[in-house]
Amino acid sequence: MAQLPRLMFVGFGEAASLFAKGFAQQGVERLAAYSPSVHGGPGEALLRDRAAQAGTILLSGPEQFSDAEWIFAMVPPVRAREAAASVGPCLTPGTFYVDFSSAAPADKRAAAEIVSAGGGRYIDAGIIGSVPTSGHRVPVIASGADAGVFRDTFAPLGMDITLVGDAVGAAAGTKLVRGILAKGLEALYVEALVVAERSGVTGEVLDTFCAFLDARSARDTAAILLKSHVVHAARRADEVSLARDLVLEAGVEPIMTDAIIRVMRQTAATSAADRVGRRQPGSLEEALAVLETELPGSASGADPS
Amino acid sequence: MAQLPRLMFVGFGEAASLFAKGFAQQGVERLAAYSPSVHGGPGEALLRDRAAQAGTILLSGPEQFSDAEWIFAMVPPVRAREAAASVGPCLTPGTFYVDFSSAAPADKRAAAEIVSAGGGRYIDAGIIGSVPTSGHRVPVIASGADAGVFRDTFAPLGMDITLVGDAVGAAAGTKLVRGILAKGLEALYVEALVVAERSGVTGEVLDTFCAFLDARSARDTAAILLKSHVVHAARRADEVSLARDLVLEAGVEPIMTDAIIRVMRQTAATSAADRVGRRQPGSLEEALAVLETELPGSASGADPS
Repeated sequence: MAQLPRLMFVGFGEAASLFAKGFAQQGVERLAAYSPSVHGGPGEALLRDRAAQAGTILLSGPEQFSDAEWIFAMVPPVRAREAAASVGPCLTPGTFYVDFSSAAPADKRAAAEIVSAGGGRYIDAGIIGSVPTSGHRVPVIASGADAGVFRDTFAPLGMDITLVGDAVGAAAGTKLVRGILAKGLEALYVEALVVAERSGVTGEVLDTFCAFLDARSARDTAAILLKSHVVHAARRADEVSLARDLVLEAGVEPIMTDAIIRVMRQTAATSAADRVGRRQPGSLEEALAVLETELPGSASGADPS
Repeated sequence: MAQLPRLMFVGFGEAASLFAKGFAQQGVERLAAYSPSVHGGPGEALLRDRAAQAGTILLSGPEQFSDAEWIFAMVPPVRAREAAASVGPCLTPGTFYVDFSSAAPADKRAAAEIVSAGGGRYIDAGIIGSVPTSGHRVPVIASGADAGVFRDTFAPLGMDITLVGDAVGAAAGTKLVRGILAKGLEALYVEALVVAERSGVTGEVLDTFCAFLDARSARDTAAILLKSHVVHAARRADEVSLARDLVLEAGVEPIMTDAIIRVMRQTAATSAADRVGRRQPGSLEEALAVLETELPGSASGADPS
């Protein structure tokens, strides 16, 4: 039994196998993994190949997790609860269970309850970078009462862990909302730069927009945008409407462009500008508080129109 | 006649009056403006007040522009052609006509033809910042054969002018497409941060997203996003779909979120990933060339679906 590994993976896809490789290079010897694919099926050959390359022992069932100190659950989001349910009852009390799935906050809270009921200590974790690029050194955010233990244990092995609160679900929510921003910027570049390319102004657009972004910290840029949004949303809807014609001329469907116009009009239809006396709020926080109150869906705001 | 000003404005709204104030402070003495509002109507009192404060003579008609060396047209986009048509025939040959309107490239080219027919020298200009904040020092982009003369003449007076090409329409197109990016980022922040606020993760989302942006130049970030988009668009559509549930739970209409999903699926439906052998292109330019070719609307791409 002394030979059994202390860090075990539930799920052993590409991300988990790259983590295992990284830990093995850091001298972690007793790595193991369990995946339902071990019992045959189309994924078994790939799974065995990955485990062999990562120096990881494949377990035949979750009951073998009883010896683990740390469990890294790296399963698809729809499997987050199921993984907790399969492993939870087999845990030695005090075992740490780090859930790296991209599941929603509610699913993570449900998984945490299952793990806690078995005596395990649940950590909500989110990978916010590219594992193929960075391996186990990829930026990770973590929340939950034991997130600090997780960081203190694995940072020395090269992990890049940022704590984002004590509540399970905080890391999950942060990852999802941050993803809207990162993928939203990506989608904006796709739509705008294809228009720019077909209009012959790609270099000019990139130069001037990047100069705007590089002129100050991202946080200060966010503040400039949100503060001015509260009072100028109506005018900006009109300005983007002019740009829309150019998008159409370029043969591009104005997917993001139309969404921007709708967001601008949505704010313009509220009392947000009046609430601040038609002067820009003093800070990002103030601007956000006004928008949060005035936009549809708030307990204190107007009914959705 | 020697007392007549050499710089004249067509249109004298807030932006033009702030420019005039700035130039007056730089010692420019002979400033004049023409606006149809001078002949009565609801705007006359405001117009006269602005002109008085900016030390600017109001002209009674565009025929008085014959003495100007420089004309700054600062009218709403729908008035760009009209302004050129009213002033063009009155110009002394060689007069520079700087069109600051936010009109589309096609409108600017039409205005340029009118001005050129009268012997004037047309410059396409775009204001890409806040005039109330920066006055006449606001960043301006300019294109056209005489854009360099414009910069060399007005940079010494404090203007911040960036040349973006020799073609009339380049500045207009750049301003419009750049506006999609800047206002798109604004709209993304509005939607995502209201969700974050209602989910209790605003600080964490801002910290992690801003850390991502501040880690490298904006241009390098754009390259990372576009290069990975070509091969990962399908997976990212799924990831944003998970975030969509959180948006709905927060009572926020997923306007930007749905648009992002559509842009990701649009790319996933093309042969872009196959065209690059499912490996990330080596540069932003390569990624954009693939997207420009594969996305609907290209002469060489597939039909719009």
